[in-house]
Amino acid sequence: MAGAMPSPSGAIGGHDPSPPDFAVPPPYRPALSTPVEFNLTSNDGPSQTILIARSPDKAYRSMNFGGQVPAPTLRITEGDTVHFTLTNQGSMPHSIDFHAAQIAWSRAYQEVAPGAAASFDWTARYPGVFMYHCGAAPVLMHMADGMYGMVIVDPKGGRPPAREYVIVQSEFYGAGGEYAKMLNDPPDFVVFNGQSFRYKTTPLLAKAGELVRLFIVNAGPNSSSAFHVIGGLFSHYESDGYPPNAQGMHQTIQVPPGDGALAELTFAEPGTYPFVTHKFSDASKGATGLFKVS
Amino acid sequence: MAGAMPSPSGAIGGHDPSPPDFAVPPPYRPALSTPVEFNLTSNDGPSQTILIARSPDKAYRSMNFGGQVPAPTLRITEGDTVHFTLTNQGSMPHSIDFHAAQIAWSRAYQEVAPGAAASFDWTARYPGVFMYHCGAAPVLMHMADGMYGMVIVDPKGGRPPAREYVIVQSEFYGAGGEYAKMLNDPPDFVVFNGQSFRYKTTPLLAKAGELVRLFIVNAGPNSSSAFHVIGGLFSHYESDGYPPNAQGMHQTIQVPPGDGALAELTFAEPGTYPFVTHKFSDASKGATGLFKVS
Amino acid sequence: MAGAMPSPSGAIGGHDPSPPDFAVPPPYRPALSTPVEFNLTSNDGPSQTILIARSPDKAYRSMNFGGQVPAPTLRITEGDTVHFTLTNQGSMPHSIDFHAAQIAWSRAYQEVAPGAAASFDWTARYPGVFMYHCGAAPVLMHMADGMYGMVIVDPKGGRPPAREYVIVQSEFYGAGGEYAKMLNDPPDFVVFNGQSFRYKTTPLLAKAGELVRLFIVNAGPNSSSAFHVIGGLFSHYESDGYPPNAQGMHQTIQVPPGDGALAELTFAEPGTYPFVTHKFSDASKGATGLFKVS
Repeated sequence: MAGAMPSPSGAIGGHDPSPPDFAVPPPYRPALSTPVEFNLTSNDGPSQTILIARSPDKAYRSMNFGGQVPAPTLRITEGDTVHFTLTNQGSMPHSIDFHAAQIAWSRAYQEVAPGAAASFDWTARYPGVFMYHCGAAPVLMHMADGMYGMVIVDPKGGRPPAREYVIVQSEFYGAGGEYAKMLNDPPDFVVFNGQSFRYKTTPLLAKAGELVRLFIVNAGPNSSSAFHVIGGLFSHYESDGYPPNAQGMHQTIQVPPGDGALAELTFAEPGTYPFVTHKFSDASKGATGLFKVS
Repeated sequence: MAGAMPSPSGAIGGHDPSPPDFAVPPPYRPALSTPVEFNLTSNDGPSQTILIARSPDKAYRSMNFGGQVPAPTLRITEGDTVHFTLTNQGSMPHSIDFHAAQIAWSRAYQEVAPGAAASFDWTARYPGVFMYHCGAAPVLMHMADGMYGMVIVDPKGGRPPAREYVIVQSEFYGAGGEYAKMLNDPPDFVVFNGQSFRYKTTPLLAKAGELVRLFIVNAGPNSSSAFHVIGGLFSHYESDGYPPNAQGMHQTIQVPPGDGALAELTFAEPGTYPFVTHKFSDASKGATGLFKVS
Repeated sequence: MAGAMPSPSGAIGGHDPSPPDFAVPPPYRPALSTPVEFNLTSNDGPSQTILIARSPDKAYRSMNFGGQVPAPTLRITEGDTVHFTLTNQGSMPHSIDFHAAQIAWSRAYQEVAPGAAASFDWTARYPGVFMYHCGAAPVLMHMADGMYGMVIVDPKGGRPPAREYVIVQSEFYGAGGEYAKMLNDPPDFVVFNGQSFRYKTTPLLAKAGELVRLFIVNAGPNSSSAFHVIGGLFSHYESDGYPPNAQGMHQTIQVPPGDGALAELTFAEPGTYPFVTHKFSDASKGATGLFKVS
């Protein structure tokens, strides 16, 4: 699983209910001449309960990839070919949909039966910051229940050195599997990297004056993100993380559900700086974190 | 009605309840030295009931232009002057609002009484992909009930050859005329070109390797579109369909209500590729279609 | 308070319930070598009731800066240093958050106790159109209750002459302080510059053929703006009001909550032209105004 982030440690009964560590994606490397192996399991059922809030603990019966929500981040380089295998350890069909790939849905993204596995190869032709997710019916439920992650495709030649973070925004409705709520109600929790307010107690770290690069995916499934750092201004922004889409200063970045972005900023001085979606009903439901800048 | 798309055939009692054909807009042509005639009727009442879902058939008491929802697409060229006439065949006042025009609302967009007609000329100064709609009070209801369409203004000199499709996203609330629902509730159906899931049974066609150009309008009235093709990546995107706004790769395109966009992609291989708004509660309510690629 | 707009006249009991005048921001001037003084009071309680609708009058128990909703607009020039003082005249803690500043939240944006004052200096390094707001907990309530305003940072060298307007879009829920509504319900009123439909009875003025420049902030707290002028097309648009982000023609501008924009247009002929958010449920709740063009 070259290029993928490590799974969380401390699993209980084969599954860790706490959110995965997204703080340190692996660094850039040149494109590989051989396929990158990327293997995911799909999981569902009572054993996949996760904690989407810290205090009081809030249980959510997830579906997921790799036993974690969000799923592992895959980081590759423009031009890489990925050899992907999905092994369905769940009780119902699941599938995969890589936004980074250009491939027929009818060939690659079909449902995999419980106990079965499926493989295909795909090539990352565009650098960018992409969502991936389960596309099994009903897609809304499989996504809202936790089956999403990020693919970072670095441009050939890489990017300037920076402290990098992965931020996946998503919503939770009810306690899992409540389709009618997903369809028509506002979310109960909106989170960064799987747990409401998770970075208020364990802030992301940075140093004043250094470049900080954020890879952002809004997994939704429904709410648009208005990503913002309080006390900071983005000096560089790329819609979809695609370098030719670059713009300059932004105070707030609109990331619709199913989209990705890259944003860079430099903190002016030591201290703490919250980050939120500036759709403040969502920020109030958990999409609020902290940078701690030394 | 040069430049306008044909009305649907198979009318029943003077009105066809099935959605109109949007698959083949007329090709580009040089700007005309004489005005383009564009004539619309406005319609309302029980005879204008349309089917906004296929199975089970779902009746909606529409208001519309030209007996169809969405209204006929007008395709012209930058610099063209349009001689427009609205003939109100309905039972209440209606009006027109062309986003492509620069003209005083107080002169051109006023309400036309039942049985009356009104004309004015306007010139398309900007190439782009534009919404048009009824602006009679209450505007929210006239729009939500089906009074919207698209104007494509090709740039002088045209665009590269491509297979082209028109996609109008919109929402339906209740069974028609339910203003309180439009104002405060989530939609019951979200559709492409007038009918939920219409392109799941009759997919849009394309060939692998050819350029496909999508003209997109989000008629709303309320929900933002996060337009996305599963298995595809947009290679070219123009906000408002205005060539100087061009950007490169996008996985998902944000089209707010009342806005338009142009997006191009090339399918990598034969097969089927769904297209959705990635606001998946909306996709689940009908804003899901299919491309069938040979 | 150099660069700030005048407070409204006609105060009753120390507070004017009518919305402030935002029609004529002070013009551009070169950057100052000495700090710009900007002083705000924060206010809350029954005496701060404002009228967020004209007919019938609708009372809202606001929190605010400077006794008005929206707060005074600060207009400065790229490179200016601002010496800011917040004097809390309210009954609960309040704070400030300038999107235009790059400064540690933990140092500058902390809560100020009732009766206390706090000062800090900040420098405007980026030209742009920025939101400012109260960040005291619960932030959603302090913002929804009216504690927001705009900072315009002109680029060095200024901008071409134009008729300029400030437009702050925001939502109101209930009658003030109704947190559960702010969190989960659609808004009751959506307004430009503090009062629903305020520019329908007192239109903004312009002349045909002149350049009109709009400084736009969407204060939210929740709804995305799809800003649009009926009968007009924007010829120039800058996300966040940052000149290098410039794009050309737009029919509709997406401004997420917590973001700003600059948009320019020229009216083609005399007459009236409504402006709205094209999310028409919001336009129907008050986010509709008029330009009167001579």
